[in-house]
Amino acid sequence: MADSNHAWNDSADRNAAVRFIDINLRGVGQIFFQNNPLTGLLILLAVFWGSIEADAVYVGIGAVVGLLVGTSVALILRADNDSLRQGMFGFSPVLTGAAVPTFLGNDPVMWVYLVIGAAVTTVVTLAVSNLLNTWGIPASTGPFVLTTWFLLLGAYQLSRLTIGSMGPPALPEAAAAADFDVTAESLATSMLKGVSQVVLVGSWASGIIILIALAVSSRWAAGLGAAGTIVGTLLAIGFGADATAISEGLWGFSPVLTAIALGAVFLHTSWPVLLYAALGTVFTVFVQAGLITALGPLGVPTLTAPYLIAMWLFTLPKPDLAPTAHHKRVKHSVLTSDSANQ
Amino acid sequence: MADSNHAWNDSADRNAAVRFIDINLRGVGQIFFQNNPLTGLLILLAVFWGSIEADAVYVGIGAVVGLLVGTSVALILRADNDSLRQGMFGFSPVLTGAAVPTFLGNDPVMWVYLVIGAAVTTVVTLAVSNLLNTWGIPASTGPFVLTTWFLLLGAYQLSRLTIGSMGPPALPEAAAAADFDVTAESLATSMLKGVSQVVLVGSWASGIIILIALAVSSRWAAGLGAAGTIVGTLLAIGFGADATAISEGLWGFSPVLTAIALGAVFLHTSWPVLLYAALGTVFTVFVQAGLITALGPLGVPTLTAPYLIAMWLFTLPKPDLAPTAHHKRVKHSVLTSDSANQ
Amino acid sequence: MADSNHAWNDSADRNAAVRFIDINLRGVGQIFFQNNPLTGLLILLAVFWGSIEADAVYVGIGAVVGLLVGTSVALILRADNDSLRQGMFGFSPVLTGAAVPTFLGNDPVMWVYLVIGAAVTTVVTLAVSNLLNTWGIPASTGPFVLTTWFLLLGAYQLSRLTIGSMGPPALPEAAAAADFDVTAESLATSMLKGVSQVVLVGSWASGIIILIALAVSSRWAAGLGAAGTIVGTLLAIGFGADATAISEGLWGFSPVLTAIALGAVFLHTSWPVLLYAALGTVFTVFVQAGLITALGPLGVPTLTAPYLIAMWLFTLPKPDLAPTAHHKRVKHSVLTSDSANQ
Repeated sequence: MADSNHAWNDSADRNAAVRFIDINLRGVGQIFFQNNPLTGLLILLAVFWGSIEADAVYVGIGAVVGLLVGTSVALILRADNDSLRQGMFGFSPVLTGAAVPTFLGNDPVMWVYLVIGAAVTTVVTLAVSNLLNTWGIPASTGPFVLTTWFLLLGAYQLSRLTIGSMGPPALPEAAAAADFDVTAESLATSMLKGVSQVVLVGSWASGIIILIALAVSSRWAAGLGAAGTIVGTLLAIGFGADATAISEGLWGFSPVLTAIALGAVFLHTSWPVLLYAALGTVFTVFVQAGLITALGPLGVPTLTAPYLIAMWLFTLPKPDLAPTAHHKRVKHSVLTSDSANQ
Repeated sequence: MADSNHAWNDSADRNAAVRFIDINLRGVGQIFFQNNPLTGLLILLAVFWGSIEADAVYVGIGAVVGLLVGTSVALILRADNDSLRQGMFGFSPVLTGAAVPTFLGNDPVMWVYLVIGAAVTTVVTLAVSNLLNTWGIPASTGPFVLTTWFLLLGAYQLSRLTIGSMGPPALPEAAAAADFDVTAESLATSMLKGVSQVVLVGSWASGIIILIALAVSSRWAAGLGAAGTIVGTLLAIGFGADATAISEGLWGFSPVLTAIALGAVFLHTSWPVLLYAALGTVFTVFVQAGLITALGPLGVPTLTAPYLIAMWLFTLPKPDLAPTAHHKRVKHSVLTSDSANQ
Repeated sequence: MADSNHAWNDSADRNAAVRFIDINLRGVGQIFFQNNPLTGLLILLAVFWGSIEADAVYVGIGAVVGLLVGTSVALILRADNDSLRQGMFGFSPVLTGAAVPTFLGNDPVMWVYLVIGAAVTTVVTLAVSNLLNTWGIPASTGPFVLTTWFLLLGAYQLSRLTIGSMGPPALPEAAAAADFDVTAESLATSMLKGVSQVVLVGSWASGIIILIALAVSSRWAAGLGAAGTIVGTLLAIGFGADATAISEGLWGFSPVLTAIALGAVFLHTSWPVLLYAALGTVFTVFVQAGLITALGPLGVPTLTAPYLIAMWLFTLPKPDLAPTAHHKRVKHSVLTSDSANQ
């Protein structure tokens, strides 16, 4: 396989068409932090498998359209070439492209909306990257979530678009007693669907394909991804979350990303880091519960925001960081001359 | 006109009272990014025309009170003199002063609220400017929006204030089929009201006065402003937004600001920039749709937030920016010694 | 007392167990910005007094558990030693620990939630400190508010947790006419409870103990704290806020913190600063009104967020700050080469 990899990379270096395909496939792989075109190809296969299984092939088509539009806009805007080659401008628009037809009706106007949204996702990727580079933390799928939230919220006001599988907007209520039927099979399918829901499809077969796709590139990524969906699903069951949502894998996908991101991507794997990543993964589940409540009145899904919030909060801490001391003066403030400010 | 400009500027340099008037008029002009006292005077005229036409002259008076309070607080806090002279501390409080009596009832307590709100708007201008200077992007009307949102939201809890023309708070619902009656007249009045709604009045005559005010200072600003309201209104019609809101110009005002800001103010006008500004202007309409949904349960208006969000997202991208790579380690993180972090 | 202070400090330097107690007590004192173990001890006494009086001793126990967990996680993560010794990692988790059993039911699962929440609060303290150090402003109780909001929001989705004294989620309505019965006694108890509500208990006796605790460390802190609750309570009465909430001290606690923070902690006390702090304290009341409206549909309390927002907005302004001018180009933007960008 190393040989075929080598041949592919050579070919991508020399041929612009192959390079464009390579960039797009790496973009898909980067959804799970993998700079690997084969991983991307397998994930794309999983998306199509899951969307065809659900009789919704337009979700897979939307993903591809979003990917091509997003990558093309990055090329037009002359984004940083190294980042582009690694697929850094693909993973957010591919998700925007999968999410819009998942949650909105399959009308012609929706496709216009999707294309504009995917183009904007690339601009937002550049914007959020500039913001977060200040602290050296990654934008990750933040541009996808931000852009898609606006598109989905906006659909409620625009009568030419139809609301699909989201909402209806409702005030939160205390959860009814949970009734998830725990069997080996129900656990396994829920957990595998948790993996596939990262790419907006709920299919245990797609979950398996994605775990294989990850193992091709990194065994740590595959193992931590599996651990993430296990933690997320078990914790949701233990704290009594909605059984249907658990069955659909909706409590697994954000923890999958947090576990991989903290355990093996943004931090250097070690025992302390794995414990820290475990705490972050557990917190992801609570953030998700909180966001479901917060977004309930608006009738839109959390997307990967629970992962993003947990990941940002757990990658921001620095060693030997001195917080601005609570009892000290703010430096050089309005109304306070420097000499008086000691 | 150049001569009379010259005479006015000389007079403002020498005479403190003229200078104070000059600063305030430039502050009004800066709502549309124009550092020009005549433009400001004409816009103020448009505000009074529109508010008198609507039998709500207190909106015009509120704008003037807000302006004077805001500018005075900036003087008291010894804000940067150059910025002050250019009217940079006027445009947010003038809008706070127009918005509070637009959305709340004309009670005596409301005027106390307005004055405190305008004073705070200047503090918030200094605060948000410090925040955003980190990335070299402008605070623009952000301080107006932030302060006014708190004031309007707060009014629901304070029984001595009455809720005027906003709300009632309601959960979002899928939009009913749109029925905007497209005629040359309905289009023209909606689009002109779109221009005037930037200053919280809905009057096609005010819209014409403002376009003239802009042309006095910059033909690009006038042309792009007109283009913005055309794009916003047509897109709202095309996607089926609420017909009454379109007629009132409520889908035009944010795109007006985005089009001017991106097309001729914050970026250097060129064909690629105009295309980029067009994408940003289109996105402004979708952000507005999204914010209407998001704020619906809270019963407060979007104000110019759709413009701000689009403008910030479209001015943040830098050329050859390398996003923090998705598969790299965060530098110098807690739990990770530097030597292990390579 | 100076002698006993000295003996205590010596003992803390030499003995790890005493040092751990000292760090934790200082952490409690830092809720009110006081790096003083005796102040912390008295505040802890006030928390227990208030929680026992309300037949809810588990709130006091929760506070202690949160404190010990939060401080321990800071030690494990090897947080900056000087900050740690000053109690900078104690004041947020102690509040998380008090808030969770205040608003959720006293079930066994709640304690698991509380412990994880307190541990995460320390991580979030490091994260938010890194964010805000960029502008030299303090994280203060931000990590408590952020973490606790997620926990409280999340409880609505997790049926093993029960909702206690918060909510129910409801859309905002215009406030009914207020009927706070103004007597010397009703004012005094409301204002004293305003002080005690900072630590989540509503007891006038606890309020007195806390004012004494503050006076032990700083007379300015005690005086400004008293001024804060007076301003907050009177303004709430004057603008017609809900009478029951006023009686419970819920309109006093955020202004207490703003008054101390702006008047004597983060700015250098002077007449102009006191006026500036007064404006900030008044604005805190309006922000609180706004946040009550904004959070109403979600069924969670504002916690100390009104203080945080006002404090951040009033500590960010710098003297002679030039806002990014409204009519100038953004530097080095995408699509704009530097030479064209003058």
